[in-house]
Amino acid sequence: MFNIKLVIAYFGVSYAGWQKTKMGPSIEEVLEQTLARILQHEVKLQAASRTDAGVHAHAQVVNFIAQKPLDLNRLKYSLNGMLPKEIAILEAVEMPFDFHPTLDTIGKEYWYQICNSPTQLPFHRQTSWHFPYPLDLDQMRLAASHLLGTHDFSSFCNDRKLWDRNPVCRLEKIEITPLPGQRFNIALLGDHFLFRMARNLAGTLAYAGCGKLKPRELSSILESKDRTLAGVTAPAHGLTLKQVFY
Amino acid sequence: MFNIKLVIAYFGVSYAGWQKTKMGPSIEEVLEQTLARILQHEVKLQAASRTDAGVHAHAQVVNFIAQKPLDLNRLKYSLNGMLPKEIAILEAVEMPFDFHPTLDTIGKEYWYQICNSPTQLPFHRQTSWHFPYPLDLDQMRLAASHLLGTHDFSSFCNDRKLWDRNPVCRLEKIEITPLPGQRFNIALLGDHFLFRMARNLAGTLAYAGCGKLKPRELSSILESKDRTLAGVTAPAHGLTLKQVFY
Repeated sequence: MFNIKLVIAYFGVSYAGWQKTKMGPSIEEVLEQTLARILQHEVKLQAASRTDAGVHAHAQVVNFIAQKPLDLNRLKYSLNGMLPKEIAILEAVEMPFDFHPTLDTIGKEYWYQICNSPTQLPFHRQTSWHFPYPLDLDQMRLAASHLLGTHDFSSFCNDRKLWDRNPVCRLEKIEITPLPGQRFNIALLGDHFLFRMARNLAGTLAYAGCGKLKPRELSSILESKDRTLAGVTAPAHGLTLKQVFY
Repeated sequence: MFNIKLVIAYFGVSYAGWQKTKMGPSIEEVLEQTLARILQHEVKLQAASRTDAGVHAHAQVVNFIAQKPLDLNRLKYSLNGMLPKEIAILEAVEMPFDFHPTLDTIGKEYWYQICNSPTQLPFHRQTSWHFPYPLDLDQMRLAASHLLGTHDFSSFCNDRKLWDRNPVCRLEKIEITPLPGQRFNIALLGDHFLFRMARNLAGTLAYAGCGKLKPRELSSILESKDRTLAGVTAPAHGLTLKQVFY
């Protein structure tokens, strides 16, 4: 038995998210089926992040147990040949038997991209949220400064029942950087993220950027533990799982 | 009668190019039909560049004659509401009656993007050419230096019969710049471009980058006026009409 780690990239728009669901094809399902065809035995995947429907990944980390030794370079080429163009295998390596992609995670980085042009442009429309009202990046950065550090992020979690884990997260970094084409990126680095937390942070920062919320209100929103006080859940297609740390 | 200039952006992958053809829907056809629905009279468009099937545009320039005065801001909003998401109107302005988007052009800038990662990544795969063999950007820059200036570019024109214009073009700039995700961009600025010339230049520079051609051979390829001596025609989806100069 061999514990194989895969690092994968995917363009999530046409998928119902990482996890298997009746709502449509999921990345997990497509990858498990392709692996089973190659390995000729059933495969069960575990992933670092259960990305929502429409969310992208630059480097999702998953594992599975192979029953026989594998030429991992060949496995990578076979998978990339057979998988749909929206999914790519970047790395395939054998890990110690106790490696677990979900439980061993010590941090994750997400990127949220916003296109702030008055007209929606045909480029990047599937990887960024079109927000047509002017956004003040300095106000957004000021708002972000209140979120950094260790807090109870219940106000940014869409369904606490779905989430039995500790609502206290540590946000290490929120970096807002301009990109070409009137776009910008919000890089979020934290030890763990609650259900929809990255998208809720992006939506709330956009509210701060367009004046619907004052930056200093962020502290009281955190304290309230009341989801209804924070901003909108930003659309899934703007979000990318950038990196997982172990 | 009013001479209206539109600046438009489009994502060309699902279109049969700018010009009307029996091969599938064209940008020209879709835009003419949408304008005719709004203006309630037939519309004939003229464009700065007849981009090939699959080629994108950041700022194509077109014009049409309107029979009555128009609220151009409202026209822009109506068009953006009615057009498919792959086409966006960036600007609508009235021009002097003698303005012609094709004949008045003094220069054009094209961008050609190449993704040079061993594995094709799911992002940018519809806007960059996946070239999996290592490319030496310095060799490409050296090759490009032989193409700058005024030359007969017949060796880079796919069908001279289709092109009655002067085969002598002036290339002002060829700039090769790295982009995130193992990609890079070739910016080409010239007074005019022959049929498939931008894609043939990109393909030939890639040949120089991977050692199939030596940079100094570029001068003799130009002199030969023989298309078969230059490199491959790079795929359409890597090319973008970036800007038109008047």
